[in-house]
Amino acid sequence: MAQARQLLLTPGPTDVPEPVLEALRRPMIHHRTKDYQAIFGKVNAGLKELFRTREPVVTFASSGTGAMEASVVNLLSRGDKVIACHAGKFGERYRDLARVYGCEVVEIRRPYGKAVRPGEVREALQGHPDAKAVLMTFLETSTGVVHPVEDIAGITRRSGAVLMVDAVSGMACDPLEMDAWGVDVVVCGSQKGLMLPPGLAFLAVNERARELAERSDLPKYYFHLGAALKALAKEDTPYTPAVNLVYGLEASLGLILGEGLPKVWERHAKIASKVRGEIKGLGLSLFPENPSNALTAISMPEGVVSDALIKSMRSEENIVMANGQAQLKGKMVRFAHMGDTAREEPARRGLNALTRALAGVGYVPVNGKR
Amino acid sequence: MAQARQLLLTPGPTDVPEPVLEALRRPMIHHRTKDYQAIFGKVNAGLKELFRTREPVVTFASSGTGAMEASVVNLLSRGDKVIACHAGKFGERYRDLARVYGCEVVEIRRPYGKAVRPGEVREALQGHPDAKAVLMTFLETSTGVVHPVEDIAGITRRSGAVLMVDAVSGMACDPLEMDAWGVDVVVCGSQKGLMLPPGLAFLAVNERARELAERSDLPKYYFHLGAALKALAKEDTPYTPAVNLVYGLEASLGLILGEGLPKVWERHAKIASKVRGEIKGLGLSLFPENPSNALTAISMPEGVVSDALIKSMRSEENIVMANGQAQLKGKMVRFAHMGDTAREEPARRGLNALTRALAGVGYVPVNGKR
Repeated sequence: MAQARQLLLTPGPTDVPEPVLEALRRPMIHHRTKDYQAIFGKVNAGLKELFRTREPVVTFASSGTGAMEASVVNLLSRGDKVIACHAGKFGERYRDLARVYGCEVVEIRRPYGKAVRPGEVREALQGHPDAKAVLMTFLETSTGVVHPVEDIAGITRRSGAVLMVDAVSGMACDPLEMDAWGVDVVVCGSQKGLMLPPGLAFLAVNERARELAERSDLPKYYFHLGAALKALAKEDTPYTPAVNLVYGLEASLGLILGEGLPKVWERHAKIASKVRGEIKGLGLSLFPENPSNALTAISMPEGVVSDALIKSMRSEENIVMANGQAQLKGKMVRFAHMGDTAREEPARRGLNALTRALAGVGYVPVNGKR
Repeated sequence: MAQARQLLLTPGPTDVPEPVLEALRRPMIHHRTKDYQAIFGKVNAGLKELFRTREPVVTFASSGTGAMEASVVNLLSRGDKVIACHAGKFGERYRDLARVYGCEVVEIRRPYGKAVRPGEVREALQGHPDAKAVLMTFLETSTGVVHPVEDIAGITRRSGAVLMVDAVSGMACDPLEMDAWGVDVVVCGSQKGLMLPPGLAFLAVNERARELAERSDLPKYYFHLGAALKALAKEDTPYTPAVNLVYGLEASLGLILGEGLPKVWERHAKIASKVRGEIKGLGLSLFPENPSNALTAISMPEGVVSDALIKSMRSEENIVMANGQAQLKGKMVRFAHMGDTAREEPARRGLNALTRALAGVGYVPVNGKR
């Protein structure tokens, strides 16, 4: 029996819509041509709309981690002090990146599932007025928390430190206003809210960030921001771009901006609210304190191991949700409604599958309680 | 009038065959699953066959330059002496990469169009017995020269220096035997002989190279070889892989290894010989002294600027060849027969188009002479 196409409800990669898949298979063209420049020019304008910025957005052929590294090696210098906020796996990654490149890291650590507190960032900046940057995550995919970027940007923009935000996850799902909020650096990847396959990463830098970059002494080549910005001015890249993924990006930006970014945010908010409500109605609790609209991270009730639920949804219904990562493995189901799956029908299918899987392991919700 | 599909006769990117384009558009799956491991495992075995090695071949989501950088940052240390052989733009890139990361570079410079001489490498190693590595290019795409990797490997493998070969261009076109020749490091990209879109890069490392990597003190994160090798042992990657390009890689390896790599090499040799013969028959001369089978770099006769030929082939026949790069712009047409275009029909179309374009600018070959 032929199974229905897999429904991917993981928080990245996300399901890629048909028009984007179709774009990926367009024949190869050479990237140093007017034909490619026309596509890349359109894409670059679209990326600015997506990031809500007038600043340049650089595209790299890499995964999101590559653009995180690009932000570190281009803006910072050996021995620079940075404040790294973390409350999950991806926040830790940004901290680790700064350490690998010889920065002195002041940590603001919050427990997994909690959000970074702006007051702690203010105190850290007061205690370390020589800090060059604050590093933080937008949507911490490992816990489902969306961190308060707007509030923290309100602090950093009046400080001497730039704010660097890893928005690989959360972009085009939860509202993020780079220019209006005063975020200096925004990093993004292709395989989440952008509904593309992995393989592209983005780095937006405002003037404050570009000035800092001019003083950076860290070694870089493939991820060289100066070279990328110079090429970008001619709708070009220093090294060969991932042309077919850029075809896909043109299609996905068309879908997102055609719908209108605020409408896309609203759609995520509406579906997230519905999913959260039903999850609570099943007597389950949410893991994060400030949940993203792209992802519902569900704590497991006593006696239920998430592996069993995930395995049964996968084998019985061809629906894929994610387990917890690292210390949260077995303790969490991460149910994404991100990009093209932030819609009634896939969310409904996910909720039904999860309800059946819970019943399959003997979990019985009674009047919203176990 | 609908124009025929563009024929891409540039030396990377190359035309992507239909079965590979079709593979690119397969629906997204999650990369931390057995389904993906099965594909990646098959691909990893295929890459070893392609590289003619039993050693691990790491895949990065990046362009080829990323894997060149990976070879430098993982094997070398600050202050290490390296011998960089160059006779074109890509050889210079490898040298520049080593310099950016603080290596002391001994240059073996040959004029554009010439091949590196093994004797010079032997002398350099005798003069610098403390050199940790020899860096060289396999097919120097900017000039069409294939450098004598086998002969140089015969020297380096009896020395204390590892041989690092940038085979981004040339792989699956000109014969390259990593293990049999004793090449320590081979770098490759996706958009040339592999007939894929750009966006994947590869790094194969033998035991000598892995031992050197253990002592490396250069900073790295995204391109961390140790992390990649550890993940590779489980058919995994440290960071999100470019899944759809890996689908394409599975298809392209299927085509290449299905035909048989030695047959693919023979096909390139046969077409290259034919193209070279006809080019000479037109009274034109070849630029490189040791031409690759993947690419015919044609010097322009007096009074002919290559831009005019390239523009007319493009607009009249929808055939794209490449100009010379940097100081060779205007002085050269680079006619690739690489991957899927190393066949009678596309080569014939290219030769006919070039002949007509030459006539269009008033060039008249007479009995093989002007």
